[in-house]
Amino acid sequence: METIPILENEQKSNDNRLTIIRKSPAYWSIIINNPPLNLFDPKMFAELNVLLDNIETDNELKVVVFESADEDFFMNHHDVENRTTVPDQPGAMPFFGNWPKFVTRLAQAPVISIAKVRGRARAQGFEFALACDMRFASKERAKFALVEVGGSSIPGGGGVEWLSALVGRSRALEIVLSADDFDAEIGERYGFVNRSIADVELDSYVDALAERMAKFEKRALETGKKMVNARAGIPSEGDLWMSNHILQGVDLWPEAGKAFSKMLDAGLGKVGNFELNFAERLGDLPTV
Amino acid sequence: METIPILENEQKSNDNRLTIIRKSPAYWSIIINNPPLNLFDPKMFAELNVLLDNIETDNELKVVVFESADEDFFMNHHDVENRTTVPDQPGAMPFFGNWPKFVTRLAQAPVISIAKVRGRARAQGFEFALACDMRFASKERAKFALVEVGGSSIPGGGGVEWLSALVGRSRALEIVLSADDFDAEIGERYGFVNRSIADVELDSYVDALAERMAKFEKRALETGKKMVNARAGIPSEGDLWMSNHILQGVDLWPEAGKAFSKMLDAGLGKVGNFELNFAERLGDLPTV
Amino acid sequence: METIPILENEQKSNDNRLTIIRKSPAYWSIIINNPPLNLFDPKMFAELNVLLDNIETDNELKVVVFESADEDFFMNHHDVENRTTVPDQPGAMPFFGNWPKFVTRLAQAPVISIAKVRGRARAQGFEFALACDMRFASKERAKFALVEVGGSSIPGGGGVEWLSALVGRSRALEIVLSADDFDAEIGERYGFVNRSIADVELDSYVDALAERMAKFEKRALETGKKMVNARAGIPSEGDLWMSNHILQGVDLWPEAGKAFSKMLDAGLGKVGNFELNFAERLGDLPTV
Repeated sequence: METIPILENEQKSNDNRLTIIRKSPAYWSIIINNPPLNLFDPKMFAELNVLLDNIETDNELKVVVFESADEDFFMNHHDVENRTTVPDQPGAMPFFGNWPKFVTRLAQAPVISIAKVRGRARAQGFEFALACDMRFASKERAKFALVEVGGSSIPGGGGVEWLSALVGRSRALEIVLSADDFDAEIGERYGFVNRSIADVELDSYVDALAERMAKFEKRALETGKKMVNARAGIPSEGDLWMSNHILQGVDLWPEAGKAFSKMLDAGLGKVGNFELNFAERLGDLPTV
Repeated sequence: METIPILENEQKSNDNRLTIIRKSPAYWSIIINNPPLNLFDPKMFAELNVLLDNIETDNELKVVVFESADEDFFMNHHDVENRTTVPDQPGAMPFFGNWPKFVTRLAQAPVISIAKVRGRARAQGFEFALACDMRFASKERAKFALVEVGGSSIPGGGGVEWLSALVGRSRALEIVLSADDFDAEIGERYGFVNRSIADVELDSYVDALAERMAKFEKRALETGKKMVNARAGIPSEGDLWMSNHILQGVDLWPEAGKAFSKMLDAGLGKVGNFELNFAERLGDLPTV
Repeated sequence: METIPILENEQKSNDNRLTIIRKSPAYWSIIINNPPLNLFDPKMFAELNVLLDNIETDNELKVVVFESADEDFFMNHHDVENRTTVPDQPGAMPFFGNWPKFVTRLAQAPVISIAKVRGRARAQGFEFALACDMRFASKERAKFALVEVGGSSIPGGGGVEWLSALVGRSRALEIVLSADDFDAEIGERYGFVNRSIADVELDSYVDALAERMAKFEKRALETGKKMVNARAGIPSEGDLWMSNHILQGVDLWPEAGKAFSKMLDAGLGKVGNFELNFAERLGDLPTV
């Protein structure tokens, strides 16, 4: 079993956000790690793009499982202040306009992607999990939230598109407009996680599933995935692109700027209570 | 907190079916009350249209919660004998051909609508609840039924359209063709209610959700709702119109007339056992 | 109550796979019986076609319930070695290219079809159950699996189409790509069975539902079904045909031939452990 930082060969970065653990040629575990809050930032996006290049071209790979090195955060929201930065490293590109391509490529990749969720998956982090083919979540420790509307913004990373297809209009409206936390049990009941699993069993459960599928023929897996994609639908890149650009346009809303300032004051992006209890704290913020 | 009969200013009616309780400028509770059976009648439709005019134009309003003054009936089926009456009051218009417009407007309104369901929501009453953005229902006291097929008719108020999208083909067929009662637990499992909530907690649960959303920025809420509408789909007015007119055409079926007579004899529209146990009683009626 | 082998009049076969129990003119129970493994074979397909001719033209029939005479297998996978045989009997036709027509006709038939599932419904057997309008399954004894991908093949009988619509993309991918068993409880939670019912209550539950619907007017039932079909969608014959032909093309994959040989050696199509525990055994087979 090899452990490989995603940028190992390129040596362009000392701060890998993603590390590949090659459990076998057919099954990789991908560790997400951007301390201290596991924010989604331009370097993480760049590394995801490099990973996807690998995923698309590896002839032996069948299953990738994404998990977090941080027990509190599976993957967090954007590092908002650096959201438009484009770092000088492989795979780097602007988030706006390019995230829809990533989602589309991952959903159509000839490899099965699984999000194994412990801790918080909020905003962009939830939207990344939704872009994976399947989600299995810790009954005790997973929390999902699209907090954007509570911060005078909207989810622009695919959350609306995936949830609308998975949970239907009324529950998608509840998740998007309440901007609140939803645990794994509700996720299973609503349908946005495949299953809620007791935390103590989550690793072995996902491992067994991944190993099982990794034994099957790649052509059969890929054909099965393409067939489901054809009928169950994946959001079009155009649909994703429109949401992505609605989010970009939110910067023109004065109330979004005010809410952002207020959230920064309350602890946004800093280690502490606000980040741990983001959705709850949104309900407490005085009206903007 | 102001309490306002919907027709207060117009003084055209002494028998308000709807009363607005303005909990705040952003959050209204709408009380449905048409004793003794909370039938949906042309006056109630007229008041709903007036309410919708208000909802669409109020710049401060963000959330409306519909609830019933009658603990046995959230909202009941049509007052069938008066179904084609057009009363002389604001908002009055023929049900056939115009209900689809109401549903379409409510689903696209810049305000979030929630049905808080206690008691029976049957036929048109269930279809109204389905037209709301979200539904939260009393675990012990809510009952949902599309009784139409059991009375040799069909649901023409949007029930087929919403259920098909929320619960899928097989469960929509079960609900429509069995014409039976479904409680809140099944509603949650099938997906046509957001959640089943213990009756004692229902009020505070919905109140907290409504208050939370009412704190958020109206533009963010409205944009989020439009985005979900764009992807999750709302039935087109054309689709709703077709169902509405299939229902209208049922008057040409001889078996529908016979079933209607039989149900009238059994207690349709009268206070008593038949109305309380409509779906159950349908199963007992001798074959038409 | 009459019991009628489906081919009684034609006398072309001594080995009826289907027997009609006419519980009433409006409600038939169809017994599936092809000992010893209840494999789906060309004779069973022929009899299903004859049955469908009857279903489509009978003016009194309203509900058909499919159940198995074999407590271990509701309906099993293809009798693979005889898959392309066309027997000399009424209703016989090649499976490839014609199964999509059967599914389309059943879904649009003016009669409600219910699968009452005990035992295993695997591969084609699961796909047949999915083609029925509703599914009620034994909590203790039903098992559903699309085992194809585990055997280096793909589901070509409609499984992808129906599951994509009923359970959404992520759970459809899980079912198709894991090729594993799913019980009735998960089936209910995921949405591919209407309800999981305690085995001891299953018969009376389905019987009561069928009898209830059989009392209602045929025109109302048929109109309700057509309305749900129009909005909830049934897979198009073209979509089903494409999956059917992808499956046919799998014979060109060398890995499929190897997997087939390996499964034959392990006990495919023979009474014993492999057939009882097909999905589990797939996970144990050494990599092809």
